Amino acid sequence: MQACRDRIESVLEALLPSVAIAPDKLHAAMRYAVLGGGKRVRPLLAYAAGEAAGADPARVDRAAAAVELIHAYSLVHDDLPSMDNDVLRRGQPTVHVKFDEATALLVGDALQSLAFEALTEPGLAGRPEDQIGMLATLARASGSRGMAGGQAVDLASQGKALTVEELEFMHVHKTGALIACSVSLGAACGTMSPDELRGALHFARFMGLAFQVVDDVLDATESTETLGKTAGKDAAGSKPTYVSAMGVERARSYADELLEDALSGLAPLGDRGRRLADLGRYIVSRNS
Amino acid sequence: MQACRDRIESVLEALLPSVAIAPDKLHAAMRYAVLGGGKRVRPLLAYAAGEAAGADPARVDRAAAAVELIHAYSLVHDDLPSMDNDVLRRGQPTVHVKFDEATALLVGDALQSLAFEALTEPGLAGRPEDQIGMLATLARASGSRGMAGGQAVDLASQGKALTVEELEFMHVHKTGALIACSVSLGAACGTMSPDELRGALHFARFMGLAFQVVDDVLDATESTETLGKTAGKDAAGSKPTYVSAMGVERARSYADELLEDALSGLAPLGDRGRRLADLGRYIVSRNS
Repeated sequence: MQACRDRIESVLEALLPSVAIAPDKLHAAMRYAVLGGGKRVRPLLAYAAGEAAGADPARVDRAAAAVELIHAYSLVHDDLPSMDNDVLRRGQPTVHVKFDEATALLVGDALQSLAFEALTEPGLAGRPEDQIGMLATLARASGSRGMAGGQAVDLASQGKALTVEELEFMHVHKTGALIACSVSLGAACGTMSPDELRGALHFARFMGLAFQVVDDVLDATESTETLGKTAGKDAAGSKPTYVSAMGVERARSYADELLEDALSGLAPLGDRGRRLADLGRYIVSRNS
Repeated sequence: MQACRDRIESVLEALLPSVAIAPDKLHAAMRYAVLGGGKRVRPLLAYAAGEAAGADPARVDRAAAAVELIHAYSLVHDDLPSMDNDVLRRGQPTVHVKFDEATALLVGDALQSLAFEALTEPGLAGRPEDQIGMLATLARASGSRGMAGGQAVDLASQGKALTVEELEFMHVHKTGALIACSVSLGAACGTMSPDELRGALHFARFMGLAFQVVDDVLDATESTETLGKTAGKDAAGSKPTYVSAMGVERARSYADELLEDALSGLAPLGDRGRRLADLGRYIVSRNS
């Protein structure tokens, strides 16, 4: 897992424009937002799905970078004062605190463009048509019916008590869409039978939910120091979460159930799905 | 020109998610930001370049929509309080005034994703490889070495006196990149010889600058009512402009010189470049 994290760090490092290129402050802020931290869950999923599909990791690099760039942009924008107004991320001041709000806005905008640019490198999929399909998948996962849409539902629900079903609708979009996209893009770099792909996407959908349930539990139970971001924010902001909907203990066992459901999707992949399975277990057992 | 504007309005209307689809508030705000106004200069350029390249207008629709969606997202974000803090756009309250800041942020983010999604419709270019190239062109024109980068330079230059050369560096990125991209994408929907394409891009580069010079003149000379956005903002914000650098009269004649330079690029296209030439003249003679 660490080798994979080192790999994506180098790929992102090479993709992000150097601070020697104008506008230097914007490029410095983009690098600050992306490099040197994070669990890199989405790139790890992309590489693992690529491995399951028999793809050379070098071919998965751009897909792994694209999903991480989208994730990084969403964190920068989510932390802005008009959204979550957070000052700490990955143990460091957030981008708008370290730089300024206008720069943070542009950092997010430019990282989104860079994510799409990363996927335009020729030869990422077997056929160029399939690569256009990868770009479409990334765009839908990021947009108003994916991540940005989930964020909008999240905003609208603050201070409200949501049912578990409503929570799931929100998270399927906010977190799940990009998690599923990571698996889908990794798989598209290689070859999977329709059955295998269906199974991998089943895994991704359930892992997206499990990821969010665990996030909610960690926010309620771990310290700011361990998380590297402000802990206890959900309760303080009256955000509806799995913890507020079902309590810590039930949320923990719900995450385990979702993991079991997710793993069942990997059956058609046999041994080739082992890395995805390991990642699934890591996502549910992590402490930050 | 009006027929073309009606055409792009329908295309955008069909591309933007309906307010009947969740999240409805986000979709309503996206539609508010994009539909029912604007000069549509970038789509007009894309259609005119497509015509010059012998492309069916139906094939240019997505390219025209993509550049307008990027433009619309940039206006929504530029108008935010942390940027230009503007309350009026196209004669209406800006998105963050009509809705709220967090929604405006997400509207811009989701419109950018939608722009890329629009370009993933199969069959937009002769070969899928070329369509991937169109996506790369859009990504570069939008990102930190294109529009978002120009915006960052603009931010950094407020209150400073820039030379004409420094102003040009800023505008080549901030406005010029997307104007050139509009021509480039339109042309990619059809066929141009290398000479014709070089000429069309020469036209686009000079028109990008001319567009901005005229914008600066209009800001200094026209009323808020005519412009549909707050007039006199540049001087009020101590923004370096062509008017502050060279005065209104010299800026006007500079725009005419840029137009002549731009038109010279259209020579290789002969009669097929007529619509682009007409658009060039319109851009320099417009009063809003």
